[in-house]
Amino acid sequence: MEAADAIPGYVYGSDDLERSPVSEDDLALLKQTVLFGDDDERQLRLAGEVLRDQVEDVLDVWYGFVASHPHLVRYFADADGNPIDGYLSRVRARFGQWIRDLCERPWDRAWLDYQEQIALRHTRAKKNETDAVEAPEQIPLRYMIAFVYPISATVRDFLAKKGHSEQEVDAMHQAWFKAVTLSVALWSRPYAGDAW
Amino acid sequence: MEAADAIPGYVYGSDDLERSPVSEDDLALLKQTVLFGDDDERQLRLAGEVLRDQVEDVLDVWYGFVASHPHLVRYFADADGNPIDGYLSRVRARFGQWIRDLCERPWDRAWLDYQEQIALRHTRAKKNETDAVEAPEQIPLRYMIAFVYPISATVRDFLAKKGHSEQEVDAMHQAWFKAVTLSVALWSRPYAGDAW
Repeated sequence: MEAADAIPGYVYGSDDLERSPVSEDDLALLKQTVLFGDDDERQLRLAGEVLRDQVEDVLDVWYGFVASHPHLVRYFADADGNPIDGYLSRVRARFGQWIRDLCERPWDRAWLDYQEQIALRHTRAKKNETDAVEAPEQIPLRYMIAFVYPISATVRDFLAKKGHSEQEVDAMHQAWFKAVTLSVALWSRPYAGDAW
Repeated sequence: MEAADAIPGYVYGSDDLERSPVSEDDLALLKQTVLFGDDDERQLRLAGEVLRDQVEDVLDVWYGFVASHPHLVRYFADADGNPIDGYLSRVRARFGQWIRDLCERPWDRAWLDYQEQIALRHTRAKKNETDAVEAPEQIPLRYMIAFVYPISATVRDFLAKKGHSEQEVDAMHQAWFKAVTLSVALWSRPYAGDAW
C-alpha cells in the first residue's frame, strides 16, 4: 500500500473514521448472495497481483469512458459544466487505490468502514466535501448500479495480460465481478435508508 | 407471449398501469452507461430464442439458490418463517415471463411502465399486495443489487446449450449481463427517491 498516505482524502483505517452501520453478519450474507467463496478470495488476490502495475491503464479506460459521456462527466464539473481537473485527479487517485484495496485488503471492520466512507462520498452527505469543490451534490444511484457492467467487463483484458490460461483469467474475472457487485451493494446503503 | 395472460398479477401493457417516472431519455442514458448498443439488442433477441424452452430450468437454478439460503427465502415466508408456496409459485411465473420479456419485448413506454411495477412490487409500496400474502414488506436494496451476479452468471451455461460457438455465447451473455444490470438500475428507483 505504498504512497497511500499521499492520496488526498484517503483515510483508510483512520481512528477518526465513522463506523459503518453494516455488520460483519450483513457482509457475510452479501458474500453468499454474490456467491463469493474462499476460492474467489484467492482469485481476487491473484487479480490484485496481475492488476497492480496496470492500475493506471485501467483508470485510463474508465476515465476515457466517463469523459466521453456528458451525462457522466457532469458529476465532476462546475456550475458551468466544465470538468474540474483537480477534482477528477483526486478522485482518480482514490479510485486506483480502491482497485488495490479491493483485491489486497482483508474485508474486515476497517474495510467495511471505508466502504461506508466511499458510499457517503457519492451522496449529498459527503460528495464534494473531501475535495472542496462545487460539483453536483450526488451521483444518482442508477449510475452507481449501472457501473457494475463497465467496471466488471473492462477488467478482463487486463487480467489476461500476464500469461494466465483462459480458465485462470475467467476465475479471476468472476471473483472481480462478484467483488464489484458486492461493493456497489455496500455503496448503495446511504441511498436507501432502512430499505437497504 | 402465449399464456402470459394466465400469469397472476402480470399486467404488462394494461391501460390501468401507472406510468413510470423514468423517461425515454433516462433509459437511453442508462443504456449508454451499461454499453448496451444495437448489437446487444440483436444478441439479446437471440438469447431469448435460446432460453425460451429452458426458462423453467433457469428458474429451477434460481429458485434452488434462493431456497437454500434462509436470508433470501425469508422474503417469501410467513411470520413463522415458513415459505409460502403459493406466493413462490406466483412470483416464479412472473419471473419466467420477465426473462422472456427482457429478451423479446421492445424497451418502450409499456416496457418501462412494467419495470416500474416490478420495482414497486419489491418495496413497501406494493410487495405482498398483488399476491395477497403476509410476508416481509420489502426486499432490501442490497440483495436486489447483489442478485446482478447470480442472475447474470448462471445464465451462461443455458446460452451454451444450443450449439452456438464460444464467441456467440459470449456475445449473448454480455448482452444479458448488461440487460440485467440495467433492469436492476430501473428497479432501484423507488428505493432512492430523488437520489435515483
